[in-house]
Amino acid sequence: MLESIVENIVSSVRQVMNEPEAGLPLHIPVFGKNAESYVVECVRTGWVSSVGKFVDRFEEDLARYTGVKRAVAVVNGTAALHIAQLMVGVQPGDEVLIPSLTFVATANSVKYCNATPHFIDVCPKTLGVDPVKLDGYLSEIADVKEGVCINRNTGSPIRAIVGMHAFGHPFDIEGVQTVCAKFGLKFVEDAAESIGSYYKNQHTGGFGDVGIISFNGNKTITTGGGGALLTNDESLADRAKHITTTAKISHPYRYFHDTVAYNYRMPNINAALGCSQLEDIEALISCKRGIADRYLKAFESNEVCQIFKEPADCRSNYWLNALVLNPDFALKSGEIINLMHQHKVFVRPIWEPLHKLDIFAGCPQMDLSVTLDLGNRIINLPSTPSLD
Amino acid sequence: MLESIVENIVSSVRQVMNEPEAGLPLHIPVFGKNAESYVVECVRTGWVSSVGKFVDRFEEDLARYTGVKRAVAVVNGTAALHIAQLMVGVQPGDEVLIPSLTFVATANSVKYCNATPHFIDVCPKTLGVDPVKLDGYLSEIADVKEGVCINRNTGSPIRAIVGMHAFGHPFDIEGVQTVCAKFGLKFVEDAAESIGSYYKNQHTGGFGDVGIISFNGNKTITTGGGGALLTNDESLADRAKHITTTAKISHPYRYFHDTVAYNYRMPNINAALGCSQLEDIEALISCKRGIADRYLKAFESNEVCQIFKEPADCRSNYWLNALVLNPDFALKSGEIINLMHQHKVFVRPIWEPLHKLDIFAGCPQMDLSVTLDLGNRIINLPSTPSLD
Repeated sequence: MLESIVENIVSSVRQVMNEPEAGLPLHIPVFGKNAESYVVECVRTGWVSSVGKFVDRFEEDLARYTGVKRAVAVVNGTAALHIAQLMVGVQPGDEVLIPSLTFVATANSVKYCNATPHFIDVCPKTLGVDPVKLDGYLSEIADVKEGVCINRNTGSPIRAIVGMHAFGHPFDIEGVQTVCAKFGLKFVEDAAESIGSYYKNQHTGGFGDVGIISFNGNKTITTGGGGALLTNDESLADRAKHITTTAKISHPYRYFHDTVAYNYRMPNINAALGCSQLEDIEALISCKRGIADRYLKAFESNEVCQIFKEPADCRSNYWLNALVLNPDFALKSGEIINLMHQHKVFVRPIWEPLHKLDIFAGCPQMDLSVTLDLGNRIINLPSTPSLD
Repeated sequence: MLESIVENIVSSVRQVMNEPEAGLPLHIPVFGKNAESYVVECVRTGWVSSVGKFVDRFEEDLARYTGVKRAVAVVNGTAALHIAQLMVGVQPGDEVLIPSLTFVATANSVKYCNATPHFIDVCPKTLGVDPVKLDGYLSEIADVKEGVCINRNTGSPIRAIVGMHAFGHPFDIEGVQTVCAKFGLKFVEDAAESIGSYYKNQHTGGFGDVGIISFNGNKTITTGGGGALLTNDESLADRAKHITTTAKISHPYRYFHDTVAYNYRMPNINAALGCSQLEDIEALISCKRGIADRYLKAFESNEVCQIFKEPADCRSNYWLNALVLNPDFALKSGEIINLMHQHKVFVRPIWEPLHKLDIFAGCPQMDLSVTLDLGNRIINLPSTPSLD
């Protein structure tokens, strides 16, 4: 019976996506006409490394596209998450609220700050932070003392929340902002997956005290490896640039550094790819939204599963389309994925909820029932756009 | 008088180096015939990111060239230093012996491990660790208890030494190995600057428990941004690869991670540059050694300064040629550099000794008289090779 269900799913996927011979990959990079000439220019001029015109241009183009004052390009999204938390003042011993239903980089980056991930639940309508449930939880376990949110159970400051727009679907940003204001939390907006996604007509990543984006090879646009911080705070941007470039004080030749810092700058050759990708982003997003429309139609009368639809008042990039299995099939997702792989449709499940990993055992957590439920029921479908 | 001295130095530099119109840069990347086609191949195939054939090939080619069993490519030399220390067991609260006369990344990477830099002096004959002086110092301040070296003054374990081959000149590796054996220290060999440099006919980077190289844009060869770990220990290499790639356990689709880990992998497009650079490395090194020969001749009868010569039994890549001012001019190096910049010869001083930076004030240190002396007297000269 599962076999015929899977054949039905596979057939719907194949109605939507053109299939290469090797099978349907989840998401691969698509480059437009200038990508080659930009990287060749880097090689010919020798400007491949940590300074160069493409880094500056990429930061400017990205800030313009996302509607923020400043973007700071870094080696990857993980580095951006690390620096974002330092920028909002996360200190050793602090707790940082993060969804359990996200990529492991978020929890790792909390650890780089010598802080502790504190896992929170998500909302089934957005797949992101559930601010109503969070408000209730924090009201129970936290006190605000002199503007600092203190976890009554651990005695530690809860400094910040890192909210993530899962698969490009914006979460309830205003709801989270309200919780942050009420409890004195800093807000890191994790837009790793949501370039081209809008919340109430404003691009994601610019709502938090600081935002971050990833340009890993599996994302909507890529720089090979890369990431960026987004902010409307000029001073925060300057500090982020400084601490990601070894904190060298400007001097024509001497080597003074004024803080323990990082080598997180994005090389020019990677930024060159990014400049080309930003030239094509509208076409890529439009294609991705077309794919989502076709998926929504192809699965609309499926009795076993549905395609996750962008939240109200949001325009999603539909980075990775998400197939949500009906609760009856919660324990079958592994089998379904295996069978789909046999059909050369290379789907993947949503992340293993982070609080279930041994390495984060013992970290504080709220009730995570929605995470546990959705963690068993979501499968990402092939979503590569095309520029043809 | 200083002006005429500088004119004399500038004239000697110009005898050695062909000067572009914009002036003589310190060191810029030089690419051979395949660099363009390799990066274009990445763009055309879409393999620009964290997996791809160039990453595997670069690791294999690099291991072969440096004579070690395994190389693990990472985003930069700083990341390599961080992971190298984790791999040899540096723990929070430990001390790590590092030269004060090195780039700030070394001390920063100790801090990433929540350990403390412990500054040691260098030898005037190598510009690297002075093992005789270090032996005397450790004999005074440290005890070995159950195989662990303990600093009697601080009570902390001294876990490892990070020795650096400054400007490509190998330090006294056997001397350092003897000290490590005597005091139970792990040996991280910082070959950031010494690709193509040999100690007693064996390539640097393979002597320590683990070695590291940098491929930053200012190095002998570059990947835009990049670095690598070198080791003869297969298990260490496997652990290094694992922890630099988010510690994901191999599974066709599920997301299990078994340790707090890093996103330090080198993207494929950067590795593509590296593969091309390794094809040309013998020609580049040969050209750089030719430049050094000509500098040595041009300055041999100079009464104010001399070119630093490779240590005995070593073959140096002469990454950056080092001009050593006579002690009379120790306080004049800033003025000399300024004047040389006015002549469009873009020299730089050796690094500001790290123990003098405010951020490392209070870190333990031995007598650093050689560091303080040389720190005032060394100027790096333009050393870009050519493939013409």
